[in-house]
Amino acid sequence: MPQSPIGVFDSGFGGLTVAREILDQLPQESVLYLGDTARTPYGPRPIAEVRQLALECLDRLVDHGVKALVIACNSASAAVLADARERYAVPVVEVIRPAVRRAVAVTRSGRIGVICTQATHQSRAYVDSFVAAPPHVEVFSQPCPRFVELVEAGITSGPEVLQVARDYLAPLHEQEIDTLILGCTHYPLLASALQYVLGEQVSLVSSAAATAADLYRVLTERGLLAPRHNKPAHQWLTTGDPHGFTFLARRFLGPEVEQVHQAFVGRAEERV
Amino acid sequence: MPQSPIGVFDSGFGGLTVAREILDQLPQESVLYLGDTARTPYGPRPIAEVRQLALECLDRLVDHGVKALVIACNSASAAVLADARERYAVPVVEVIRPAVRRAVAVTRSGRIGVICTQATHQSRAYVDSFVAAPPHVEVFSQPCPRFVELVEAGITSGPEVLQVARDYLAPLHEQEIDTLILGCTHYPLLASALQYVLGEQVSLVSSAAATAADLYRVLTERGLLAPRHNKPAHQWLTTGDPHGFTFLARRFLGPEVEQVHQAFVGRAEERV
Repeated sequence: MPQSPIGVFDSGFGGLTVAREILDQLPQESVLYLGDTARTPYGPRPIAEVRQLALECLDRLVDHGVKALVIACNSASAAVLADARERYAVPVVEVIRPAVRRAVAVTRSGRIGVICTQATHQSRAYVDSFVAAPPHVEVFSQPCPRFVELVEAGITSGPEVLQVARDYLAPLHEQEIDTLILGCTHYPLLASALQYVLGEQVSLVSSAAATAADLYRVLTERGLLAPRHNKPAHQWLTTGDPHGFTFLARRFLGPEVEQVHQAFVGRAEERV
Repeated sequence: MPQSPIGVFDSGFGGLTVAREILDQLPQESVLYLGDTARTPYGPRPIAEVRQLALECLDRLVDHGVKALVIACNSASAAVLADARERYAVPVVEVIRPAVRRAVAVTRSGRIGVICTQATHQSRAYVDSFVAAPPHVEVFSQPCPRFVELVEAGITSGPEVLQVARDYLAPLHEQEIDTLILGCTHYPLLASALQYVLGEQVSLVSSAAATAADLYRVLTERGLLAPRHNKPAHQWLTTGDPHGFTFLARRFLGPEVEQVHQAFVGRAEERV
């Protein structure tokens, strides 16, 4: 079981920034990644549907014998965490709560910004997670719809992305935030651009790094770490076109993404 | 010139964590990496010698036509920054000052820890860089000699590294630091281990991430960014054995490290 892979699930590519952090921090571990690109994005769907799709994907990872699950998708994290913890015997880590804990630890003024997709913004998943924060904490959520498209096009520097970032961040700047949560797993690839626009006084909290640290803690505490000399073997699965997946996945994670296979999830008669 | 590579120099492998961040944040940019592994470690050498060795390596990168220099080596950063800025027309970025600025921006209590090699500790490079910090800032430097060896052996999780980390971090814990600078470019690979031992209340500052953000700023401000559709071509040079370099370099940076070439630096008659 300690040799078993870590199952990492996302509706698309963004979760690969989380997988990248896991590879860096836990180099002995094998990762089994499943991107539900045939049905991405989850964000605009009703929560019950997101829950169903996500559980179908997580079932598939558990069938593969993973020792832990990482829900590397903001939409699915909020929708399905409680269900997944009830449904599976293996530990489940997600991306929202580690980032929220980190942000509360980092902020000085208590003024915390969250940038995310329109869907995550509307779900109030982050804002709701701050319920137990100290009274001086105020959270300002800002949807940044164009960031995903820019990152997927490889545009993370230059005048266009800086102008888009300035426009999105202006309301947060006005609120004088001192901490910014990157509330979408695409955004770690924009970290330097965001830091440049916000200036050095604002601290960025990457949900990818915070989630990898949370997974590290869980595997350590539960005695689930792979043995030191384990030779990791990663597997990359997509519900969509493996060829198209490979190209973008290498941009997000690097050449570790070798062979990509197609996965079938859900009930046979409605399989994607 | 915007198509020219970014020259990244380190005495060994650690600078590859900086190169990794550059590849992630600036995917259009080409990196020319030079690791002076034949003469590593620089730390125990007198500062005049470190300066000479580092300038020989930086000369080599400038001869290759790099558009910017990144000194991704803590020992060399302190020893040679001023000389390099005087000597070269291209902008020079190093690893100490970006991390110091970030730590001052992050700390709440003003109690900042720095972990580093014995040599960096003795050089007081970090402590000296805090000279202009606000009066409530206190800096506690802690040498962690075994970390480099553990990271190079791929041991970043499990009881051994956690015990070593607990021993090293105990004095910083007693000082109630709230921010920790990873003052050696090997240490980003220990980030999750350090976060686990220190707990979630302590913020880690990675000099690799801070340096990539600083480089991003410099290239943006000086109009030196590669054009959007540039196809990056990385080159990896070592003054030592290319075969041995490749193995460890892949662990630090990933499979982007393909062909590694041997570089000759310094005066011909004493070439390494």
